[in-house]
Amino acid sequence: MKSLTEYLTFNTKTRRDYINITGQVEKLVAKSGIKEGLCLVNAMHITASVYINDAESGLIKDFDDWLEKLAPHEPVSQYRHNRTMEDNADAHLKRQVMGRGVVVAITDGRLDFGPWEQIYYGEFDGRRRKKVLVKIIGE
Amino acid sequence: MKSLTEYLTFNTKTRRDYINITGQVEKLVAKSGIKEGLCLVNAMHITASVYINDAESGLIKDFDDWLEKLAPHEPVSQYRHNRTMEDNADAHLKRQVMGRGVVVAITDGRLDFGPWEQIYYGEFDGRRRKKVLVKIIGE
Amino acid sequence: MKSLTEYLTFNTKTRRDYINITGQVEKLVAKSGIKEGLCLVNAMHITASVYINDAESGLIKDFDDWLEKLAPHEPVSQYRHNRTMEDNADAHLKRQVMGRGVVVAITDGRLDFGPWEQIYYGEFDGRRRKKVLVKIIGE
Repeated sequence: MKSLTEYLTFNTKTRRDYINITGQVEKLVAKSGIKEGLCLVNAMHITASVYINDAESGLIKDFDDWLEKLAPHEPVSQYRHNRTMEDNADAHLKRQVMGRGVVVAITDGRLDFGPWEQIYYGEFDGRRRKKVLVKIIGE
Repeated sequence: MKSLTEYLTFNTKTRRDYINITGQVEKLVAKSGIKEGLCLVNAMHITASVYINDAESGLIKDFDDWLEKLAPHEPVSQYRHNRTMEDNADAHLKRQVMGRGVVVAITDGRLDFGPWEQIYYGEFDGRRRKKVLVKIIGE
Repeated sequence: MKSLTEYLTFNTKTRRDYINITGQVEKLVAKSGIKEGLCLVNAMHITASVYINDAESGLIKDFDDWLEKLAPHEPVSQYRHNRTMEDNADAHLKRQVMGRGVVVAITDGRLDFGPWEQIYYGEFDGRRRKKVLVKIIGE
């Protein structure tokens, strides 16, 4: 069994942001030399997500509006967590809807994807350095 | 390390549908000959889910009602994504609640399941051919 | 390839509860002797979750309030599932928001975690014995 472990770093300019990281993950799959296996990609911070969905700007704004409706940022005082000098409780909740990470099959040395699958980093409490883990195992 | 890669195809008659695929996955686990490992099952389309929950028709209708409440299909004009000639923005959102896929342990050559775990394909924008990936790795 | 399979048992005193199981999983990673691999941790019951988020009591209460808002327990008659002598339909729904389980990378013999990641067992229909599966594969 072979494995590769790499870390990607993000520092978004806005509180919330959605970044297509498919190309970065594809390069790591190639680098690993693994032909058949599994690729785990996950946020290492608990106010961010890695998820798979569409690279369509309208839908990304729809996601953002919808997450704000399900778990609004304001008023920050509505969350107990924010009594601890934080203002990011909503980001912890949004991250649960979108998920911590994804596991993707590697077949014939490539991400085994359907036609529209793209890997996104979803940031819900940005403006600081945060990491994503890519772990690939297989042969 | 051994691996097996297979694709299941679905074409539901209705926009939304929930199909128990546990038996199909079990057959692939047997076919793989893998005794200890992991089995990834994921939707290859971004308006569908693979999830694990109950094979109880009342609960399935509860899921459907609840997803419609969290991310209603109508009015389709409420979503930016639907300005791109689509009407399936809600399906992209529903899929995030239910998840893209599941990873299941294989122990002693079988899906290592609790008493009520069943694998479902959740379709949120059907009436066309869509695929599910099954990838099994182990020994 | 090596593997380890273990089962944790929980029996919470209250209907809903959130238990930090990071230490228990860490011990199993050490016991496995696996240095590079993947660790799957999942609820084996479909009214419970295993998720990764913060070990902060205020946030845990925020999660509980939020899940009650998204999928309220009362009135139990609002759910079709509860016509089957059950009263736990809401628990099946809450579990979908929080997820069935997590896959965690093992690097250098340890859970490869960011600074605040903690593994939680989320119980939504407790007061009876329920199990969590830990499956580790790698080398």
